[in-house]
Amino acid sequence: MPDPLTSAVIKPEVRGLTAYTLKHFDAEVKIDQNENPYELPLELKREIVDRVLRRPWGRYPEFVPTSVIRTMSKFTGWPEEGILVGNGSNELIQASLTVTLGPGRRLAVPQPTFTLYKLMATTLQAEVNAVFLNADRLTFDVDKLLEASRSADVVVVCSPNNPTGCLLEREALVALLKTAPGLVLLDEAYHEFSGQTAVPLLSEHKNLVVLRTFSKAMATAGLRFGYMMAHPDIAREVYKAKLPYNVNIFTLAAVEVLIENRPVLDRGINDLVRERERVFSELQRRSAVQAFPSCANFILIRTARPSRELFDALYSSGVLVRDVSAYPLLERCLRISIGTPRENDKLLAALDRALENK
Amino acid sequence: MPDPLTSAVIKPEVRGLTAYTLKHFDAEVKIDQNENPYELPLELKREIVDRVLRRPWGRYPEFVPTSVIRTMSKFTGWPEEGILVGNGSNELIQASLTVTLGPGRRLAVPQPTFTLYKLMATTLQAEVNAVFLNADRLTFDVDKLLEASRSADVVVVCSPNNPTGCLLEREALVALLKTAPGLVLLDEAYHEFSGQTAVPLLSEHKNLVVLRTFSKAMATAGLRFGYMMAHPDIAREVYKAKLPYNVNIFTLAAVEVLIENRPVLDRGINDLVRERERVFSELQRRSAVQAFPSCANFILIRTARPSRELFDALYSSGVLVRDVSAYPLLERCLRISIGTPRENDKLLAALDRALENK
Repeated sequence: MPDPLTSAVIKPEVRGLTAYTLKHFDAEVKIDQNENPYELPLELKREIVDRVLRRPWGRYPEFVPTSVIRTMSKFTGWPEEGILVGNGSNELIQASLTVTLGPGRRLAVPQPTFTLYKLMATTLQAEVNAVFLNADRLTFDVDKLLEASRSADVVVVCSPNNPTGCLLEREALVALLKTAPGLVLLDEAYHEFSGQTAVPLLSEHKNLVVLRTFSKAMATAGLRFGYMMAHPDIAREVYKAKLPYNVNIFTLAAVEVLIENRPVLDRGINDLVRERERVFSELQRRSAVQAFPSCANFILIRTARPSRELFDALYSSGVLVRDVSAYPLLERCLRISIGTPRENDKLLAALDRALENK
Repeated sequence: MPDPLTSAVIKPEVRGLTAYTLKHFDAEVKIDQNENPYELPLELKREIVDRVLRRPWGRYPEFVPTSVIRTMSKFTGWPEEGILVGNGSNELIQASLTVTLGPGRRLAVPQPTFTLYKLMATTLQAEVNAVFLNADRLTFDVDKLLEASRSADVVVVCSPNNPTGCLLEREALVALLKTAPGLVLLDEAYHEFSGQTAVPLLSEHKNLVVLRTFSKAMATAGLRFGYMMAHPDIAREVYKAKLPYNVNIFTLAAVEVLIENRPVLDRGINDLVRERERVFSELQRRSAVQAFPSCANFILIRTARPSRELFDALYSSGVLVRDVSAYPLLERCLRISIGTPRENDKLLAALDRALENK
């Protein structure tokens, strides 16, 4: 029962929301957040720390972190004027939605997908048009998405999609960019595991905004870094809703070192892709498990057991996965991040024990 | 001339905004951003860095950084359930405004003050009611503020106020809290230099929200940390617009070490307050300068010379200050941050040269 002050000052759309949250569990095999299990080599961490120690901490970061933006421009081939950097890609998604959405405006978004898009749009009092995936294969329903895009101010697509792993193929993306009169925000959080990116489409499609993160393939979820690529006209407007000094000196130093040493990360990415394929084959051999093909660093599975039961059984074996059964269409589903080969073996063994004992 | 896509997708209120920005200048005496000139001792920095090196970087920070929130709760005496932490206090100001403002809602805010409040409210399509300071003394006009608060959903007051240095006295604040039917966001970015805080009022006034930053007295503007204290019912709602994982592992480690070593910072704060009083006396002795009394770590001055000219003259002497003459009521004004005694002496000498040579 909300008190009178809360009812008066908090917008009703916000009061009606359940906050995005995640309960903390410790586990030997932590494969619940799509993190990269391969820690950066210690010498890279020391190089980052040395650079941070050479900078004054009492001074604000540069208002516009030119050097990091230049680095990302060289890395991506997209001009500096069209790049914004953020405290994780979440901040840039939020800024993009803040400058475009409000009451009377509409977001089209596939469901199920990453929770925050809908939460942010609702907080901004916009209408949310959920476009369900194909219920059987959990892939994008491109026709429905194109149709919904016609009446949307913004379409957000996470591709590969979290938590299902499906990809919006390039042809479908191009069709969407041509159909949508508004912006198409493409969240490429997992693109390194898919071998596909929309960056080459940016120059032809002014309504395309590409978002990237260092939290997955780049192995630095603890540092919080994301970036956005868009036409400079669009970037200039999104900039207005981005916080000043939003990336701290530690993360700015880390980004430079990581990009300079990008080949070090490639090995881990290749290993994760290979392991994803191995785990997928293993899962397919188990009749009690339905595994959905994934282009990301996780695999969605469905079994006959209630998700909570299976989650608990795996957890009691020291394996922490994500119960995603509360998402639409994902009854009895769990999401399993790809870990090291040893972690993946433990998952498979724990899964076998759990499904035998049911 | 905006192109058709930008006109269609970007909200008109946002298109009409000029982005908050700051041109970068290098200078020997950098007193333009109210930063703390006293760097942390190297042994504290090393302790922070050692803690960061012991944590995994590939893993997200905790969803709720319990340990840091507990630390801030002990430090402030305010319960954990009423504390939120952010990537600078700016993020928490933004989140507070996002859950409360939209079209048809109103922000009351003194003018001139910190630029972001109005910018954020406008981005959210809210109405902004500017309450001008007393034009002569540049102090809060309490009667007008109380009157404006009656019809506002949110009142934001920066006290001590940036860029004028004036304080909202406790009696006036209590009157405001009793009069305002909505939230009162009190930005205490500079409170350590004033010897006054509203934290003791929190338990009696549910509509009070106090915001703090580590960028000024706490000498870590480069790290980006801020926190908010409010009634748990309010904190719970603001939480919904705050980004998950918004404070990175470096800053989380730093906050713990800084609070453990808070006495180290007190010496610098005391020095800055003493220097502010010395610089203020020095300025008062100069007939060509009008100095406004300040409770913060900066002083606002007015001279007969156009601000741009005086800014340039000081800059050519290696002294970088802030030209604030574009703010309402602040014609021919500059804002001077308090630096080390040596830096302050350089400023005074440069000012004398510049005003003699006019």
